[in-house]
Amino acid sequence: MRLDASERGVFPIAPTPFHADGRIDVDSIDRLTDFYAENGATGLTVLGVMGEAGKLDQGEALDVARRFIVRAEGLPVIVGVSAPGFAAMASLARSAMDAGAAGVMIAPPSTLRTDDQIVGYYAQAAEAIGADVPFVIQDYPLTFSVVMTPGVIRRIVNDNPACMMLKHEDWPGLEKISALRGFEADGTMRHIAILCGNGGLFLDFETERGADGAMTGYAFPDMLADVVRLAAAGERDAAHDLFDAHLPLLRYEQQPGIGLAVRKYVMARRGLIASPAQRKPGGALGKRAVAEVEYLLGRLARHDPRAALAPV
Amino acid sequence: MRLDASERGVFPIAPTPFHADGRIDVDSIDRLTDFYAENGATGLTVLGVMGEAGKLDQGEALDVARRFIVRAEGLPVIVGVSAPGFAAMASLARSAMDAGAAGVMIAPPSTLRTDDQIVGYYAQAAEAIGADVPFVIQDYPLTFSVVMTPGVIRRIVNDNPACMMLKHEDWPGLEKISALRGFEADGTMRHIAILCGNGGLFLDFETERGADGAMTGYAFPDMLADVVRLAAAGERDAAHDLFDAHLPLLRYEQQPGIGLAVRKYVMARRGLIASPAQRKPGGALGKRAVAEVEYLLGRLARHDPRAALAPV
Amino acid sequence: MRLDASERGVFPIAPTPFHADGRIDVDSIDRLTDFYAENGATGLTVLGVMGEAGKLDQGEALDVARRFIVRAEGLPVIVGVSAPGFAAMASLARSAMDAGAAGVMIAPPSTLRTDDQIVGYYAQAAEAIGADVPFVIQDYPLTFSVVMTPGVIRRIVNDNPACMMLKHEDWPGLEKISALRGFEADGTMRHIAILCGNGGLFLDFETERGADGAMTGYAFPDMLADVVRLAAAGERDAAHDLFDAHLPLLRYEQQPGIGLAVRKYVMARRGLIASPAQRKPGGALGKRAVAEVEYLLGRLARHDPRAALAPV
Amino acid sequence: MRLDASERGVFPIAPTPFHADGRIDVDSIDRLTDFYAENGATGLTVLGVMGEAGKLDQGEALDVARRFIVRAEGLPVIVGVSAPGFAAMASLARSAMDAGAAGVMIAPPSTLRTDDQIVGYYAQAAEAIGADVPFVIQDYPLTFSVVMTPGVIRRIVNDNPACMMLKHEDWPGLEKISALRGFEADGTMRHIAILCGNGGLFLDFETERGADGAMTGYAFPDMLADVVRLAAAGERDAAHDLFDAHLPLLRYEQQPGIGLAVRKYVMARRGLIASPAQRKPGGALGKRAVAEVEYLLGRLARHDPRAALAPV
Repeated sequence: MRLDASERGVFPIAPTPFHADGRIDVDSIDRLTDFYAENGATGLTVLGVMGEAGKLDQGEALDVARRFIVRAEGLPVIVGVSAPGFAAMASLARSAMDAGAAGVMIAPPSTLRTDDQIVGYYAQAAEAIGADVPFVIQDYPLTFSVVMTPGVIRRIVNDNPACMMLKHEDWPGLEKISALRGFEADGTMRHIAILCGNGGLFLDFETERGADGAMTGYAFPDMLADVVRLAAAGERDAAHDLFDAHLPLLRYEQQPGIGLAVRKYVMARRGLIASPAQRKPGGALGKRAVAEVEYLLGRLARHDPRAALAPV
Repeated sequence: MRLDASERGVFPIAPTPFHADGRIDVDSIDRLTDFYAENGATGLTVLGVMGEAGKLDQGEALDVARRFIVRAEGLPVIVGVSAPGFAAMASLARSAMDAGAAGVMIAPPSTLRTDDQIVGYYAQAAEAIGADVPFVIQDYPLTFSVVMTPGVIRRIVNDNPACMMLKHEDWPGLEKISALRGFEADGTMRHIAILCGNGGLFLDFETERGADGAMTGYAFPDMLADVVRLAAAGERDAAHDLFDAHLPLLRYEQQPGIGLAVRKYVMARRGLIASPAQRKPGGALGKRAVAEVEYLLGRLARHDPRAALAPV
Repeated sequence: MRLDASERGVFPIAPTPFHADGRIDVDSIDRLTDFYAENGATGLTVLGVMGEAGKLDQGEALDVARRFIVRAEGLPVIVGVSAPGFAAMASLARSAMDAGAAGVMIAPPSTLRTDDQIVGYYAQAAEAIGADVPFVIQDYPLTFSVVMTPGVIRRIVNDNPACMMLKHEDWPGLEKISALRGFEADGTMRHIAILCGNGGLFLDFETERGADGAMTGYAFPDMLADVVRLAAAGERDAAHDLFDAHLPLLRYEQQPGIGLAVRKYVMARRGLIASPAQRKPGGALGKRAVAEVEYLLGRLARHDPRAALAPV
Repeated sequence: MRLDASERGVFPIAPTPFHADGRIDVDSIDRLTDFYAENGATGLTVLGVMGEAGKLDQGEALDVARRFIVRAEGLPVIVGVSAPGFAAMASLARSAMDAGAAGVMIAPPSTLRTDDQIVGYYAQAAEAIGADVPFVIQDYPLTFSVVMTPGVIRRIVNDNPACMMLKHEDWPGLEKISALRGFEADGTMRHIAILCGNGGLFLDFETERGADGAMTGYAFPDMLADVVRLAAAGERDAAHDLFDAHLPLLRYEQQPGIGLAVRKYVMARRGLIASPAQRKPGGALGKRAVAEVEYLLGRLARHDPRAALAPV
């Protein structure tokens, strides 16, 4: 199963579950993967920044990826392979593909500045991992400080047949989706899948602009799947109603630094993983923050029964 | 009237209204100021980044500030005086205070890195503008790339008697408010006013953490004032209900680059200013974006009649 | 007298001389200008970063520029007009040109990232200052974090007839000069003057790659003029011999942060300005640093009698 | 053999030699190591940025480190273990120490800003690699954008008994050395070794300020060793004479981006490695640059016979 440009739906960014003592929690990997599969995910993405990839050594990283891949069975799994150098990237990409990954995701190093540098980087990365390995561009200027114009993305897509998807998380980004779909309409760029990140903060309008779905890690991936489905079905108001009900919590989860702590806390509360533990260094939720999240869950439960959780 | 550390409520970040041809629209300054005064503002802030201060020459900047100050009568007006050098900052600060400003706001230059550099910068700025000029620290890491720990803010406050207020827009920032209020509680820092920016995205919880209000520019400053008032009155659910109703639009307005275009568009739709025009270089709203904003206004109107605007 | 693309030689970056109490030292402006004129300068540049432009208010800045311009008589004077916004830039540019400047210099704001953003910025700047005002691109990635490819510079040059010169201080930069001269040779870019900055650290080879000279502020501008002259005359070894003799001191002066203190110290020692004083905030030389500079001057004097200064 | 705080002399930053086809050239590793050992090196550092560590996969990196360590016999070898996460860092550090390394070097990630973040990072890194593993702080703000004050370095040193050395490459940095040695003199910081990087550009004065030597990769490490030795012997003028003779080439080699290409070219010309090849992505020397380097070598040979190389 290889990633192609026709992917749609929701590829959750899977967190890596840990036990409180820092060991990888493989049972939670299985449980989480099952939950994704049964709740609308059309694929998943592992070893991203929010998957705490940097806190795993190389052996662990592969073990985690493999466990997700095996459990996900029919679902395509994308593995993050961003690395400081092409040798490590190529090595990880090969291992991931051998383990059954559908493709890999590559973020640009923060030192890139000019258009040519960005285009050149992806050309070299594609050569390093091998022309047959499908890859995803991660376009996240807020974190990576690398700004890709629509024209630069077009150059990368047209230069590299293995580029199948854009993880879109520019901010603002709605016009960028329109621009890219415009390139496809005027025949200057072949079609690629566009899945949106950025915590899902603009998913309601991103789908309307032409995005194919979401690739992000909000603790209610089932809501993301519903929104994408409703939007695809033309039920605009229903999509917005559901999205808006989640927005207060979703926005709270999107805070840099502590966002993953919020996400894991809610996922543990929902029973999707056993523990909210992160490996060090990890942001922790203080008492006040926990109470705020619980308050948001309570408010959300009035609109979405999935948020009605048993009291702690 | 001098700014002091007991300020509370909402100081809207006032946009600078322009005619379509780029001239300053003084009538809209008056109309906007009246609106603020009649709708809960307890002060206002002019010549901020979102006031397009950089697009005004020195004479215009002073004219704009003066017009707001005169019209605002009893309300304290803070004038942004951030500048590449202390001479220009001091010159603008003196002129603003002579014109009746209540205080000035100073952002750190993006080259500052270490704790000592930040503390030293504010010491020099305070000396440059004069020890008698009340000033506001603008703490906006996302834009300025300068990260101030709570401890650094404490040093600035304790070193500079004229520091009266923090414009808080760190992200995430809730724990920072708690930490600063904790310093006050344990007696290691004198009290300062904390007004929150960041487009208001976390105002619902910021007030609960101890912030005194908001200093931001959302197109419904009357809603911000209501939320602060409800929170102060202990009407927590009502505050969140109102805030949540606005959150989809507020979030849309907070997009970097085009946020001001959204804000001016809505303000013009509400009749607060005559035209959404920005001076160059300015982000513009495409047709799709306009339709999205109108859709959001329509949805908001179901909860808040202030958003029920006559069709365009 | 208007700047054009045929300029050559050395345009020293003039420091702004201050008295020890911070007042502008106009007599030293005159003395320094005379020295430049009599020692090989073919123009000069004022109100650059190293001219402490940020420490002057708008009135002072114009007074300083005017004093240099009047005294320089026949020499073209370039005035730095970089500013956070186009209104201030346009205002300063107009005033400078009215005062007799030959052209203005514009640095890109550090927020620019993509090729199109950079090209767009210069288009807007050129429109703001007026199509008839000759301007210089300042290309200094190390300080401004903006990276312009040769292709981007070509676009700026070709789009803007008033662009007459590049202040080249990319690092490394030799291949960039070759690339730009290559564009001229293949007819894809009209000729512009290229004067090199970067403290002069590579001037020996920059002239050989096709640069027209230097625009930098080393405390021996007369040496820079000699090197450019020798190189132009084909006396390669002599040019390098002189340059190499100065390199230990030149390198010492090029240290960020304290470089200007070194420069002003040596200029004061040479009698070109009355005092090494900088306005705050300014780097100061400690005792050790002063002794090191004196040691370097002593060593240099064995090769260049201009460095043989009377003991302090 | 464990690194301790009494190290002195020159620890060359060893390049990783490659064959033209990209394979690691193990014979050149041996030859280069022998050269270092026989020409004054007191230790060496491998897998630094200039060792193209990022272009090696994990297995290769360890093989390279091991080969250097075995060949270097009595000399202490420091291994760069900077990594995006602590798991990879710890894994590499353990493997390196098992292979006989004397210690490891850790650079701060470019996202660190505040004093506390930097101090906290080194505490976590020290915990991750193990309290018994001697480590070196790499302080290189120009590349890493992380600025450590002398006070921050003191906190790291005092908090972490295993911190034995500072690779000093702040710029400017002379006052920093004086400040750190001042801390030792006033008893507020225990002694650490300070070896200077930055291409050696200020080594002549760094030794005089109290640095113990150099850790950098200039193609004439034998010259660096001579300068350190002469300075230690009090032969100040002789040290500067030798240093100044090399400065034109040393400066040329210090150019970002192409510096390593210059270094490997000269090392290959000297016969220290078989080929100047870099793995991709690598800066290449054009014809003009090669001619410039040869010209510099020719000029240098007049003062230092080691630069008199057989014509190509």
